[in-house]
Amino acid sequence: MASLPNGAAAAAAAAGSSGGRPVDKEVDFANYFCTYGYLYHQKEMLCDRVRMDAYHSSVFRNAPHFEGKVVLDVGTGSGILAIWSAQAGARKVYAVEATNMAEHARELARANGVADIVEVIQGTVEDVELPEKVDVIISEWMGYFLLRESMFDSVICARDRWLKPDGVMYPSHARMWLAPIRTGLGDKKMEDLDIAMDDWNLFVQDTQAYYGVNMNALTKAYRAEHEKYYLKSSIWNNLHPNQVIGQPAVIKEIDCLTATVDEIREVRAQVMLPISLEGARLSALAGWFDVHFRGSAQNPAVEEVELNTAPDEQGGTHWGQQVFLLTPPVKVSKGDSVNVSFSMVRSKENHRLMDMEFTYELHEFSGRKHPAITTKMYLE
Amino acid sequence: MASLPNGAAAAAAAAGSSGGRPVDKEVDFANYFCTYGYLYHQKEMLCDRVRMDAYHSSVFRNAPHFEGKVVLDVGTGSGILAIWSAQAGARKVYAVEATNMAEHARELARANGVADIVEVIQGTVEDVELPEKVDVIISEWMGYFLLRESMFDSVICARDRWLKPDGVMYPSHARMWLAPIRTGLGDKKMEDLDIAMDDWNLFVQDTQAYYGVNMNALTKAYRAEHEKYYLKSSIWNNLHPNQVIGQPAVIKEIDCLTATVDEIREVRAQVMLPISLEGARLSALAGWFDVHFRGSAQNPAVEEVELNTAPDEQGGTHWGQQVFLLTPPVKVSKGDSVNVSFSMVRSKENHRLMDMEFTYELHEFSGRKHPAITTKMYLE
Repeated sequence: MASLPNGAAAAAAAAGSSGGRPVDKEVDFANYFCTYGYLYHQKEMLCDRVRMDAYHSSVFRNAPHFEGKVVLDVGTGSGILAIWSAQAGARKVYAVEATNMAEHARELARANGVADIVEVIQGTVEDVELPEKVDVIISEWMGYFLLRESMFDSVICARDRWLKPDGVMYPSHARMWLAPIRTGLGDKKMEDLDIAMDDWNLFVQDTQAYYGVNMNALTKAYRAEHEKYYLKSSIWNNLHPNQVIGQPAVIKEIDCLTATVDEIREVRAQVMLPISLEGARLSALAGWFDVHFRGSAQNPAVEEVELNTAPDEQGGTHWGQQVFLLTPPVKVSKGDSVNVSFSMVRSKENHRLMDMEFTYELHEFSGRKHPAITTKMYLE
Repeated sequence: MASLPNGAAAAAAAAGSSGGRPVDKEVDFANYFCTYGYLYHQKEMLCDRVRMDAYHSSVFRNAPHFEGKVVLDVGTGSGILAIWSAQAGARKVYAVEATNMAEHARELARANGVADIVEVIQGTVEDVELPEKVDVIISEWMGYFLLRESMFDSVICARDRWLKPDGVMYPSHARMWLAPIRTGLGDKKMEDLDIAMDDWNLFVQDTQAYYGVNMNALTKAYRAEHEKYYLKSSIWNNLHPNQVIGQPAVIKEIDCLTATVDEIREVRAQVMLPISLEGARLSALAGWFDVHFRGSAQNPAVEEVELNTAPDEQGGTHWGQQVFLLTPPVKVSKGDSVNVSFSMVRSKENHRLMDMEFTYELHEFSGRKHPAITTKMYLE
């Protein structure tokens, strides 16, 4: 046999916790939390300057939200947000972390002289017990395309259990965006798919010739598996702004102070994306997010801070954007628009991954409407 | 956050089922079985000509073991061994497969005209109920360095439940080998480790300068994490025979007809590896395995067949060999020998992965003995 080295297994697909069934905690730990137990991965996030600058500014430019206050950091990782909260004047910071990274967070709080303020608690925020309610919940919970990982569920749980009525969420708001783009990624993937199928066909011939077994019955299934892998799986990319060929649209807005799990379990939107570039090739849609730190109506921010993961000339974030290929690409012109119906639900096999469906329909400036095309996409 | 794309999670580490505790079936399915649900992966194994030729020969050159007999294929995958068994004349083949690959196996049996003989049963062999005992158990259960994946446990279980007293195991015997080798892999890994640590040191400076947090407390842990990754994790490689600089030694022999799980749960060996190359650099030990198809004492094979994964000029197998780095390398000469104490146990976090310990001691031809060095290694 020889399966791929450890868990490339799960790199192919993670199973165990379905959308409907309750989540198997052991499976979830094996597949999800364990990633965050590595300093290598923590460092990757700590090196994301856009991310770091936004959280740093949000805390230190809004010190009144922290001075003398009680803070809860959900998923503290190496503890950076908890340490900043303490440095900004918090009286007490509860820093909750499920993985063994908790030990490192404790060590770091000590090394930075805030061990008396930052209390690191190893456990899930769903299970943790705090001795008091908190003034601020801070968390960096955003996954690819905002909702991958479904970690905001835990933030909602923390908020409902521990935030004071006049408490503040950091960040306070989040939005998902969709935009029409041009990219050569799809051409490469189509070529890879062709190569894979040519290779399969040779394999079918060889297996018949050398081993007397006809494998052709599986050709269709092999193609389907590979189409999913090459064409229907969203692709991580840091796009250049000039690849965006039309106007992005917001497809979801979340108020972190009031959102419920039911509100984020599914995302459905219908948007019209106007094309702004003459003679472009629409080859994909791209998705990204931004979050804002605005405080709350009762406790507004001194200075509002934004963390934006849109395509950016200065270079991107570790989130990049998610590219959803449209194959084959469509020739479009300025004045055309693309009507997109979008839905995203959690994968049945793993509630932290997403299954999407796009229906898109080109409306030419001339009035001509192209037939609608529907395609499934997977964010894994 | 943004964890690595799906389950690169588990590529980092798989947790959930400890050596001592009973195995969590859901976690095991998520981390292990799911790999085998992909045709891509099945094809990789089906394209391994050394593997295919050995099993094909073992069946068709020993047709008397199959003609009119009842066969059980443990972990049938795409069903190839079951189909061959039917083609070789089996009266009935039970083909057990835990993953959805079972459907494809069923389809393939149909397309190859043996659907009346091959009965594909989806489930684990631990749970399956057969209506009769079997004459032959055939299985391709070997993982990297033979025992990774711990799949032989399932074959043992199948044998104890379903094999007739005079039944035959395919394969019948297995051996693990260890050899002294030369390779440049370690130099590259040492360099990678240096680069990673330089990068970490810059990161520590930057984080202090820009964000007022001292990360130096984690430097030691970061180095340990990276030493494990670069130097203490075994490396897959298809070695050339001229990289083997001394005599390989058998460190474990398994009789598939009688072996118990207790016999394979741990492997301990002490071997003397004579160096046969003048002025060589001993930079690693390499591990591989072979299996034999000899039938049994009561039912010997008509023709004995071997499947060998040793370094081979003609090119290797998909198992390759496992390279265990010795850092720093040691200069050795013809006539020297390396005394190795080896132990391998299952990882506490995942019973399908292996933790090893090597103690090695160079004995020069002159009689001089170098001090013993002990190092841990991980097969993940």
